Amino acid sequence: MSLNHSDYVKDIVFAFKKLPGIGERSARRLAFYLLSQNESVAYGLADAIKNAKQNIKLCQKCFNLSSDDICHICGNPSRNGKQLCIVENPEIIYVFEKSGNYNGYYHVLHGLINPLEGITPSDLKLKELASRVENGGFEEIILALNPNSNGEATSIYIHKILSPYNVRISALARGIPIGSDLEYVDKDTLSEALNYRKKFD
Amino acid sequence: MSLNHSDYVKDIVFAFKKLPGIGERSARRLAFYLLSQNESVAYGLADAIKNAKQNIKLCQKCFNLSSDDICHICGNPSRNGKQLCIVENPEIIYVFEKSGNYNGYYHVLHGLINPLEGITPSDLKLKELASRVENGGFEEIILALNPNSNGEATSIYIHKILSPYNVRISALARGIPIGSDLEYVDKDTLSEALNYRKKFD
Repeated sequence: MSLNHSDYVKDIVFAFKKLPGIGERSARRLAFYLLSQNESVAYGLADAIKNAKQNIKLCQKCFNLSSDDICHICGNPSRNGKQLCIVENPEIIYVFEKSGNYNGYYHVLHGLINPLEGITPSDLKLKELASRVENGGFEEIILALNPNSNGEATSIYIHKILSPYNVRISALARGIPIGSDLEYVDKDTLSEALNYRKKFD
Repeated sequence: MSLNHSDYVKDIVFAFKKLPGIGERSARRLAFYLLSQNESVAYGLADAIKNAKQNIKLCQKCFNLSSDDICHICGNPSRNGKQLCIVENPEIIYVFEKSGNYNGYYHVLHGLINPLEGITPSDLKLKELASRVENGGFEEIILALNPNSNGEATSIYIHKILSPYNVRISALARGIPIGSDLEYVDKDTLSEALNYRKKFD
């Protein structure tokens, strides 16, 4: 017995709804759009997803996405081996690399401690972090986690587990974003920006 | 030579960006999300898209999406054969059917006349519409196109090509949407709602 066309639509809607920021209505819109376009649009997306998923694994050192056992950053000996930047997920590495301001190595946690969703320290790549720091010759660990309560909790936890090692732990500066309007800056950001004000020169 | 992982990410981003409402940043977010989830999320989406695209075609009568040559609506003899509702795309049929207020048949144009994007009447299922109306025994054609300039242009064009046939042509009523706030209703809608005011009883 052949499925009704709406079952196929439902399957796509169901799969799209698992993605962040896509609700029932956007998912339906995307499904109908894909089905109304020529084959290359739909197959292009399906194949790109399958190819990537089949060929990408996690770097054994930093847990960045990688086509090889060791990613192109960990495999690059000309980067600064004294610095290790801790990030929540591989996308943050993309953002850092695009900015071109950082030349050390990374460590991807794959999440943040999140009691409400039941994500505990053991769900993150923290044991691996401690062992890298123990063996690594790093002088500075840069915490580059999102400035929210889960990011804070995770930063505090990392600070604690790394305290036995002789390593400086820093965190990204908080302050007024470039190009923003003071009127619209929230009071916590303003308070941090005041506390950490710097000499004007 | 193996591709760098970022080439796979780029392929997904490129494919996602072809979908409506998805820009560079959302596409990247979706790509990284898919790659960080377990396989079932990514393969679930890819397979749902492929299955649907392989199994869904257009109904030969109304051009709705269908798993068979004739869709489940056109194949249902208990619907009202006097009414034909003209819609832009198959998603509108979904919306109508969900509302449960219409029991006639449909005709999907697969687009609207759009001079700016070079979409002309010959790109739409208009010849097929004329031939259905010529042979169909319809008493009423309901124009259910979006209330914008392309929808208006298309409605006018359809009115012209169907004028030789003895059929009533109507259009969806314009007015104040249920649940809306008069303060936020645009002036054209308000003007239509006033012009087409009806007896209160």
